[in-house]
Amino acid sequence: MNTAPVAGQGPLALVCGGGSLPLAVADHVAARGRKVLLFPLQGIARPEDYANRPHTWAKIAMWGAFARVARAAGCTDIVMIGSMVRPSIWQLRFDFTTLMLLPRIAAAFRGGDDHILSSGAKLIEEQGFHILGAHEVAPEILVPEGSMTSAQPTERDRADIALGLDYLRATGPFDVGQAVVVAGKHVVAVEAAEGTDEMLLRVAQMRANGRLRTPAGSGVLVKAPKRGQDLRFDMPSIGPRTVENANLAGLAGVAVVAGSTIAADPSQLIAAADSAKLFVIGTPAGSEQ
Amino acid sequence: MNTAPVAGQGPLALVCGGGSLPLAVADHVAARGRKVLLFPLQGIARPEDYANRPHTWAKIAMWGAFARVARAAGCTDIVMIGSMVRPSIWQLRFDFTTLMLLPRIAAAFRGGDDHILSSGAKLIEEQGFHILGAHEVAPEILVPEGSMTSAQPTERDRADIALGLDYLRATGPFDVGQAVVVAGKHVVAVEAAEGTDEMLLRVAQMRANGRLRTPAGSGVLVKAPKRGQDLRFDMPSIGPRTVENANLAGLAGVAVVAGSTIAADPSQLIAAADSAKLFVIGTPAGSEQ
Repeated sequence: MNTAPVAGQGPLALVCGGGSLPLAVADHVAARGRKVLLFPLQGIARPEDYANRPHTWAKIAMWGAFARVARAAGCTDIVMIGSMVRPSIWQLRFDFTTLMLLPRIAAAFRGGDDHILSSGAKLIEEQGFHILGAHEVAPEILVPEGSMTSAQPTERDRADIALGLDYLRATGPFDVGQAVVVAGKHVVAVEAAEGTDEMLLRVAQMRANGRLRTPAGSGVLVKAPKRGQDLRFDMPSIGPRTVENANLAGLAGVAVVAGSTIAADPSQLIAAADSAKLFVIGTPAGSEQ
Repeated sequence: MNTAPVAGQGPLALVCGGGSLPLAVADHVAARGRKVLLFPLQGIARPEDYANRPHTWAKIAMWGAFARVARAAGCTDIVMIGSMVRPSIWQLRFDFTTLMLLPRIAAAFRGGDDHILSSGAKLIEEQGFHILGAHEVAPEILVPEGSMTSAQPTERDRADIALGLDYLRATGPFDVGQAVVVAGKHVVAVEAAEGTDEMLLRVAQMRANGRLRTPAGSGVLVKAPKRGQDLRFDMPSIGPRTVENANLAGLAGVAVVAGSTIAADPSQLIAAADSAKLFVIGTPAGSEQ
């Protein structure tokens, strides 16, 4: 068990999206002896998850209010973690500080996802805050190198993984999705705006309607960070649902890049994979570049 | 109106898959003064389309029977055209000649689509036949350079087209799909095994569920041949349905590579595009390489 803080200093402001990952990060950081302030995002984080912990609700587009509370508590380090729904700009109400920043936010929206996030980070850092990745304060959440599961990839699976990593390397410059499904040395699905789960359901459909002929129990979901991706708030991640959907898609397993992929709910993830006899493997970092 | 044959000699054996394209090719070739023998594929071509024309039914995996009829008629040139459903090997019954070739067919199936087709072509050519692309005997079916429609791409659309061609160039070596949807300078969908229509329906869904935020009437379907693709039997093609689905997906238009994309039912295609105010444009050949 690690007990020393790994990056940053002073109390940490943790801006919490959906899912259980923010709470896991909070627990890991606290176990290292660092004070954590929780800022669950209204409309995204579930109130019942925070009922028993001190917290301050934060609103997207209400940056000023958050900044005041965080500053008063002596936080300069911020971590943003958890599932997000990209907000529609018309559904938001803005506070004054955010309104002042709007022209620059609008400019950021003209680029891709990475561009939005990096521009947002720059704005925040100009106000004296420092944004860290969740993995920098809680490296326990990262997928390690090697198999996390009882099942191991076969030679055939390893060939599929290598092809998937090659493909993702070739498309890295395009700010597209970060996942593919490879089966029988064939890229059969590529993730773009639809997301990983949607892509896996498509593979399940293609198995059902005969469009995919490789036998069930073959094929691999391969995820890798995009080149130049800012891993502080947009790191590839997997969780129990990823494994369940990979199983629905009739795959043999899931391969991600060790040290730059987050495993949400790792114990549930491993249990789901083991009961479905799927492998989940972290390929050596650097092999994706 | 062209009247001279453009490639090959003697009567042409036209193996006909589904749709109206085989009949259009037959008419174009006949208009050039070349005799055409029709071999509609059983279970794929529609009997009523051939009722008024002399024809000989052909069966996939019954190569011997086809070869005898074609040879007796003095055909050495073969063109295969029309939509195909890739046959499941277990649903087929084989004739003796095909059975003798099975080990090599099985070897071919280990590669991707291109590999299967090229290997099949090699087998056929070893038996004294010559396979031509439909576009070599009927260049009328190709999308020409420039806009086929009243609508024209805007500057914004041209930027999306350029990005799509860049992406397809980067993934050319992978024997994946040959189409992407780009909107707002963002690759939002990539075709792999699911096919172009399925991808367009996904884009329509992402518009409906708010996952895609670019306004309706923006975004382009971009298609290009894979690098090294054997254009004799696997050329990118578009038809009225492509345009209808692009319209459902809320796109501004469709861009393909001039001279290496087939337009099926061009008059219906143009009518569908014009009524939906979509553009269909052939980008200069060579710009995809």
